[in-house]
Amino acid sequence: MQTQELILKKRSGLELSTEELRELLYGYLEGDVKDYQMSAWLMAVFFQGLSDRELRDWTRLMWQSGRSFARSHRNDFWVDKHSTGGVGDKTSLLLVPLVTAVFQSLNIDGVRIPMVSGRGLGHTGGTLDKLESVPGFSPQISFEEADELLSSNHFFMMGQTQEMAPADRLIYALRDVTGTVESQPLIVSSIMSKKLSESLDGIVFDVKVGKGAFMKNLEQARSLAEGLRGVAKAQKLASVAVMTSMDEPLGSTIGNFVEVEECCDFLLGQEREEGLKTVTLTLASWMIHLASRGKISFEEGLLECEQALETQAPYDLFVKMFEAQGGRWSAFERTREKMGDHVDSLFFKASQDGWVSKLPPKVLGVLVNELGGGRQSKDDLIQPLVGMKLYKKVGDRVAQGEDLLELRFHEKGNRQKVIDTLEKAIEIKQSEVTKTQWVLETLS
Amino acid sequence: MQTQELILKKRSGLELSTEELRELLYGYLEGDVKDYQMSAWLMAVFFQGLSDRELRDWTRLMWQSGRSFARSHRNDFWVDKHSTGGVGDKTSLLLVPLVTAVFQSLNIDGVRIPMVSGRGLGHTGGTLDKLESVPGFSPQISFEEADELLSSNHFFMMGQTQEMAPADRLIYALRDVTGTVESQPLIVSSIMSKKLSESLDGIVFDVKVGKGAFMKNLEQARSLAEGLRGVAKAQKLASVAVMTSMDEPLGSTIGNFVEVEECCDFLLGQEREEGLKTVTLTLASWMIHLASRGKISFEEGLLECEQALETQAPYDLFVKMFEAQGGRWSAFERTREKMGDHVDSLFFKASQDGWVSKLPPKVLGVLVNELGGGRQSKDDLIQPLVGMKLYKKVGDRVAQGEDLLELRFHEKGNRQKVIDTLEKAIEIKQSEVTKTQWVLETLS
Repeated sequence: MQTQELILKKRSGLELSTEELRELLYGYLEGDVKDYQMSAWLMAVFFQGLSDRELRDWTRLMWQSGRSFARSHRNDFWVDKHSTGGVGDKTSLLLVPLVTAVFQSLNIDGVRIPMVSGRGLGHTGGTLDKLESVPGFSPQISFEEADELLSSNHFFMMGQTQEMAPADRLIYALRDVTGTVESQPLIVSSIMSKKLSESLDGIVFDVKVGKGAFMKNLEQARSLAEGLRGVAKAQKLASVAVMTSMDEPLGSTIGNFVEVEECCDFLLGQEREEGLKTVTLTLASWMIHLASRGKISFEEGLLECEQALETQAPYDLFVKMFEAQGGRWSAFERTREKMGDHVDSLFFKASQDGWVSKLPPKVLGVLVNELGGGRQSKDDLIQPLVGMKLYKKVGDRVAQGEDLLELRFHEKGNRQKVIDTLEKAIEIKQSEVTKTQWVLETLS
Repeated sequence: MQTQELILKKRSGLELSTEELRELLYGYLEGDVKDYQMSAWLMAVFFQGLSDRELRDWTRLMWQSGRSFARSHRNDFWVDKHSTGGVGDKTSLLLVPLVTAVFQSLNIDGVRIPMVSGRGLGHTGGTLDKLESVPGFSPQISFEEADELLSSNHFFMMGQTQEMAPADRLIYALRDVTGTVESQPLIVSSIMSKKLSESLDGIVFDVKVGKGAFMKNLEQARSLAEGLRGVAKAQKLASVAVMTSMDEPLGSTIGNFVEVEECCDFLLGQEREEGLKTVTLTLASWMIHLASRGKISFEEGLLECEQALETQAPYDLFVKMFEAQGGRWSAFERTREKMGDHVDSLFFKASQDGWVSKLPPKVLGVLVNELGGGRQSKDDLIQPLVGMKLYKKVGDRVAQGEDLLELRFHEKGNRQKVIDTLEKAIEIKQSEVTKTQWVLETLS
């Protein structure tokens, strides 16, 4: 069939057969289907959607355009988490050592966490960027190195390689410049084609909901979660989807280095911000539940996590996570001790007594990024030390003149502009404000 | 604004400003906006439409991307006709000499018909292809030659040049391969950007309705007619839109050479098929009405046409139309006399007594094209002598064994396949069938 007929078919709201989808996607990879035809088809998908069958096929085709991890030991359980992206979200960095520590303490050996993460773009941060704030750490590892790490350490942290779902990489780049990012089936197929390359047995989805998330309300988030779980199920992946709030940043830091610091403090028990703890332990417990093939209930998982957090094992695994991939932990610690030599700090104070009612994640995330802590376009270099520490969260009581947050500059920034932005963004109310409800709904 | 934001805006159903449309179109012409972005935008337009203001702007921008005819004598009246495309539609070839003859007989000098036509594609024929069946005729004339012809002959017949609305040519080629042809605002802007290049004062639209037309029902046709007239009005063009039937072919021939033959017979009074006469005289009278600036009513125009057809003036102008652009009329006449030397004829006969109830224009048009009379893809060469003569039209009484039509082959075709196609396509009923109503509605 001619490409324009495949476009017309979708434009008219008709279903494409498996063979037609294959013709379209692989024709695109081979150059027979042109960029301008694919982008028109993607826009037609934006308006007409994909049927469940089309979505499964499209995902599978994108996934099979590349290489997947080989599974030599079929009895292992490979589990990962995927978040749809939020501000201050450092849970991946905590989940890997925490879940590993729990299974070690239970003498269960077959669980593996092959974590493939992305970089930050727009107002959200990226796990890879956070990991790289430890000098020397490299997420660029080969399939073979990843395999070795999985055998020796039971986990690795890597970036998407050229070999994983290359069709998704091409299609995503095209969507990015043709206004076709915000289409649920295209989002689901993009996420799942990459995750399927990890050859997982189970996955926990953290679907962010709220002002700072892609999904603005629970209904949208639930629909996305169902889409993700549908494709997972079709490929025989066990899954749980947790809808969590993104109405304020997660945890008490935004940035790269500063988020790794928060993870240290969290694992060592020095500071555990309520939201970060709730979300991390919820996700960890579902990962444990899945990886135990249901033998450990979610509630038991929570208890195991609490117990593990009373030991130093998760912290030691956390350090190992960096060192196993070249991270020089001592260099990280030295920089941490002498932070004042590297950055200028701005302390933003409360203008009145009251309760913090608004810490808009998008505004704060964009602010950190614009100061160098993130990317505005793909090729931007990140200044890892730029970051924000939140001393108060939504619902916290604050007195006039008290520090609300600290902003770390790498270069001399325009302080007045930053202060103006913060003054507009942050709200303090005279009456008591309820704290954020972090876990909104779970589909298991 | 970034291109993807312009796409997002349209995708969300918002209006783009004049400046934004300019940025998009001229950015495309300059290569800053990519093919894949334009095709995504066009698909978004398919779903979200264009507002009246956007449509006017987009048309004007496409028109102004190129060159228009210079108007030295502003007191002249330049008039043209545009048809949305049908099978057997040779009215352009008749209108030019007929309208010119009427104004000559009335000693009115200032009317000019600068006719820019297209080629056939798909099941419909093209005026240029028909004109070229007279050996030597060339529609490739320069702006300067066109200007001279307009002064000396008061008309010309030419093809779209590279200089006329180049943006439309690029966009149309893109729409053709990206499934974005069938969008009313895109159709209107494409037609009007070319017609505006003719620097017209008035235009008559022949909007075809029915099985063999792009518009399947009167409602769709009316909507297209209103769109065309809206843009015409915004550019101060007087216009009339006539909705005419395309449920059976117009006239009694389909092809190229054979349609020029029918025009000869029509002008010489040897055969005037009812539908062709009705549509031609209706369009001609509206052109006369417009070109007289309303001084000649539509009804008076009809009478003038009837009178002109009683003289040989229209036929002489018809021959002049070809000869002025290189056509060797004597060569055409010689071929006509010896048609039997050039083609094989197949006579398709009625299988039973009755009334002809179905002569599906699309099937018959495609059949002629497939036998070499038209193009299936843009680069196909046409065999001008291939064609069909209809001896019966819808509503005509026919006896078993009587000739229904004659098909002229250029090469030995697969006769049985042709007969099978015709047997399936043409229907004869036992009860009386009403004749086609040719003029369905007029917007003036």
